[in-house]
Amino acid sequence: MPKLILIYFDFDGGRGEAARLTMHIAGIPFEDKRIPGKEWPAQRDKTPFQAMPVLEVDGKVITQSNTINRYLGKLAGLYPKDDWQAALADELMDAVEDISTKIGNTMALEDEPKKKAREALAAGPIPRFLKQIEARLKAGGGEWFVEKRLTVADIKCFLWVRWLKSGALDHIPADIVDKQAPLLAKHLERVKNHPKIAAYYAARGK
Amino acid sequence: MPKLILIYFDFDGGRGEAARLTMHIAGIPFEDKRIPGKEWPAQRDKTPFQAMPVLEVDGKVITQSNTINRYLGKLAGLYPKDDWQAALADELMDAVEDISTKIGNTMALEDEPKKKAREALAAGPIPRFLKQIEARLKAGGGEWFVEKRLTVADIKCFLWVRWLKSGALDHIPADIVDKQAPLLAKHLERVKNHPKIAAYYAARGK
Repeated sequence: MPKLILIYFDFDGGRGEAARLTMHIAGIPFEDKRIPGKEWPAQRDKTPFQAMPVLEVDGKVITQSNTINRYLGKLAGLYPKDDWQAALADELMDAVEDISTKIGNTMALEDEPKKKAREALAAGPIPRFLKQIEARLKAGGGEWFVEKRLTVADIKCFLWVRWLKSGALDHIPADIVDKQAPLLAKHLERVKNHPKIAAYYAARGK
Repeated sequence: MPKLILIYFDFDGGRGEAARLTMHIAGIPFEDKRIPGKEWPAQRDKTPFQAMPVLEVDGKVITQSNTINRYLGKLAGLYPKDDWQAALADELMDAVEDISTKIGNTMALEDEPKKKAREALAAGPIPRFLKQIEARLKAGGGEWFVEKRLTVADIKCFLWVRWLKSGALDHIPADIVDKQAPLLAKHLERVKNHPKIAAYYAARGK
């Protein structure tokens, strides 16, 4: 196994968290290098694309969250080997990244434009994505997205749904998942209760 | 080979073009279903995520441009088999998608905010991405991004650089690639002159 260092913000969510969970589930040793928010402005220019997560693999650097998830998913045995199943997992991760970016783009807005932008997302794109992603879960059998087992696609979706349900996003109703895609709310519980994930968050006091 | 239908806008660029080129290079038969811009509003809700490209594979639908590129890249033999090389190709495609989306997000803005947003991109993020992507080309040997041969990563970068150099983007200097990342301008010519790509565009009268 290569020497792995994951560099990301010091919180248990966001674009870097799927990589952490993937390595913890598979028992892959890595250095979890957490950058405090106040150090980010000084660190920013040291990252290739002024963004995190960054993964170091035997001293070589790779960026882009889904690229990292896919690479680690292969190391962890949590990514499909079949090309079509892999495409379904990729589609799910890219779709979640797309809608997460749309939501993320509202974070730095002033109060009024933020309210307007988030209400527009809650009225159209978020329900659309929830329903389409729920349909893919159904197509996969209803419990997992592909191969009837936990993969990086489930981890990616779990973190997005947890964020939506957290109540942290003003102007996006925290019950939007329950109302629009109840199977994704059940999927959240399924992933959260995965023994390795439950043990990881318990150890972190979450 | 599965029966393939690519559904995308009727122009020779954008998020769907890499899929077309990938299939043409490998001689993979497909239906090139082009949706005229005026039909898009009526078609929009028929796509899963109200976006194109969409790929039909034996009647099954897959979305997300880099997901499609990766899947077709595997069919075409234009995607690395080695996990680390695959990660480098993925990173390149995700990085180009990221900066392309940032530029694309300015398309619908009014004149003044568009000018402001594009000048900000031209002052920071675009040069940063160009230099970092050029550095990856150098690391790959200077001619191709991975495996010293044409892959979907080269096709993705080629289309982005061609867009930047086209002069179609007001407020983003058309010489920004030549000035910031001259190796990427050379790479554009290398891909454009690939016999299969040159023949394809010649046949289309481009």
